[in-house]
Amino acid sequence: MSTKAYAAFNAEDPLKPHIIERRALDPKDVFIKIEYCGVCHSDLHTAKSDWGPTNYPAVPGHEIIGRVEAVGSEVTKFKAGEIVGVGCMVESCKHCHSCNQGLEQYCENGFTGTYNSTKSKYGGVTYGGYSENIVVEEDFVLHIPDNLPLENVAPLLCAGITTWSPLSHWNIRKGDKVGIIGLGGLGHMGVKFAKAMGAHVVMITTSESKGADAMNLGADEVLISKDPEQMKKHAYSFDFLLNTIPVAHDVNPYLLLLKLDKTMCMVGAIEPLPGVHGGVLINKRRNIAGSLIGGIKETQEMLDFCGKYGIVSEVEVIPMKDINEAYIRMQKSDVKYRFVIDMKTL
Amino acid sequence: MSTKAYAAFNAEDPLKPHIIERRALDPKDVFIKIEYCGVCHSDLHTAKSDWGPTNYPAVPGHEIIGRVEAVGSEVTKFKAGEIVGVGCMVESCKHCHSCNQGLEQYCENGFTGTYNSTKSKYGGVTYGGYSENIVVEEDFVLHIPDNLPLENVAPLLCAGITTWSPLSHWNIRKGDKVGIIGLGGLGHMGVKFAKAMGAHVVMITTSESKGADAMNLGADEVLISKDPEQMKKHAYSFDFLLNTIPVAHDVNPYLLLLKLDKTMCMVGAIEPLPGVHGGVLINKRRNIAGSLIGGIKETQEMLDFCGKYGIVSEVEVIPMKDINEAYIRMQKSDVKYRFVIDMKTL
Repeated sequence: MSTKAYAAFNAEDPLKPHIIERRALDPKDVFIKIEYCGVCHSDLHTAKSDWGPTNYPAVPGHEIIGRVEAVGSEVTKFKAGEIVGVGCMVESCKHCHSCNQGLEQYCENGFTGTYNSTKSKYGGVTYGGYSENIVVEEDFVLHIPDNLPLENVAPLLCAGITTWSPLSHWNIRKGDKVGIIGLGGLGHMGVKFAKAMGAHVVMITTSESKGADAMNLGADEVLISKDPEQMKKHAYSFDFLLNTIPVAHDVNPYLLLLKLDKTMCMVGAIEPLPGVHGGVLINKRRNIAGSLIGGIKETQEMLDFCGKYGIVSEVEVIPMKDINEAYIRMQKSDVKYRFVIDMKTL
Repeated sequence: MSTKAYAAFNAEDPLKPHIIERRALDPKDVFIKIEYCGVCHSDLHTAKSDWGPTNYPAVPGHEIIGRVEAVGSEVTKFKAGEIVGVGCMVESCKHCHSCNQGLEQYCENGFTGTYNSTKSKYGGVTYGGYSENIVVEEDFVLHIPDNLPLENVAPLLCAGITTWSPLSHWNIRKGDKVGIIGLGGLGHMGVKFAKAMGAHVVMITTSESKGADAMNLGADEVLISKDPEQMKKHAYSFDFLLNTIPVAHDVNPYLLLLKLDKTMCMVGAIEPLPGVHGGVLINKRRNIAGSLIGGIKETQEMLDFCGKYGIVSEVEVIPMKDINEAYIRMQKSDVKYRFVIDMKTL
């Protein structure tokens, strides 16, 4: 079916209106009219071929909220009219060890990304959420709680689950001292989730003003990481650190904050980290780990949790035509904390 | 009491005969006549002030086997005539969270090293095992199984426990695929322990001949790390990696060998590791950790295990006068796999 979308055609050009084709409904497919789509750093990286050659034209967007318009004959979980979500994945092998555990993000045969993937069993390249509509297998569609503003829910599908998954995996609970490093799209969700899980939440940032913002979002304390005295005072005191800084940086000052046997989990910096010090790991049996988005089952659990505790992302809603300006502002971290496109404006 | 020892007097000079003082026995002290002392890389680093200024004269040696000659009035665990061991620590605070768990190596107030430490509550600087005798609190003295050759037991007190502790902490068991990276004093013990714990042991080395040696020590398989084809074949297949390489190196090729959620533990490289790749951690929720020697309780467990399974270190016994030549050979990795000084030759 021919559908309007916004696409990148090469690494330099801005996104432009375009017509794409969506597949006809398979028996297990859900046809979704998109209402809102969050703007993730990955969208820009893909538009610009930052992560290897992009398959152009590329339609970004993997924080998708929409309404079911039609379902295939074998769909059991969704009905027309229902509000649903789609995140970073639209297919996986469903039979490997990871998929069997509900960890499709670590599919041993590689999941199919919501956009720019050539791995789909339906052929072609996947097109994302900067689009009128999308067709997705029901196993990769999420139920959305009915008590939350939809534009604020969209970023939960990537920024939300990316921070929820490690906090849940490392079993954060009441009384834990948890540091969230960096306050952006990911970090602000980390603060909200860790707080709701009962942790004592410390915002770790270079910026006094971001510290103040984090306190407004629910943080219990601020640690200014460029102040060696403050860093020393908090040394060896954290149960978990969620590091959302999106670029390479010296992680050793943060590692020194961890107690014996505790972990710092990286979710932002997908690049080489300079000089992780073996001695800092060895001296207190500390760990550095990474975590990638989250599985479908835990994404649903996160959404249900958000419904129960009234947690959403802080967003700035934009019309489709402002996307290129939003990209420029996003690169300067000039957004609190996520742009969301209102798809009525396409 | 005046005692013969071998000491370093500055960072350049070779070790020389010397007279040191040992304290008079406190009620909880054990007086040990030293029979064998292993030669650890740390000894050389200390003799040369590689790790910050050494307190000269420095008497190295923390892989100590000897016979109890006398005990203080309140000693209950040891008797004169018994063969005992002393490792890397001789005191700790005994009341912090780590000490309370039997993890004196992570004592929050800092343990007292067997040599070159000024933290002893008895004052002065601690002198190690290149010496006729030593006085140690009974809580830091180990029982030695009576069925093992003593010269081969000495290195268990540092090289042994340093590899045992992480294999035990990460719960290695039957069927696990475990990689031991590097074959030296640490690595050869890692092979023996992982094998005895029931793992499928893969020696990971750049050298074909070290691979063959590892097979003789009990490894099940050899992976030549400079062969990209072999590395690719083993990608994403290991349950645990014990990295014993003693210097900084690129860890990313090794990290790619780990399965989802699994850990590489560093025990050798106490320096900054170049460019640990965030993406390699993130893509499979992999971990890098470190581990430091081991606690007294687990050191005793290791020694008991060694007695039960007949596990010892491979050693080359030397007279005291050859220590400086041994240091030179050790720096060239020209030893299989640990020098041990016969203290009768002092």
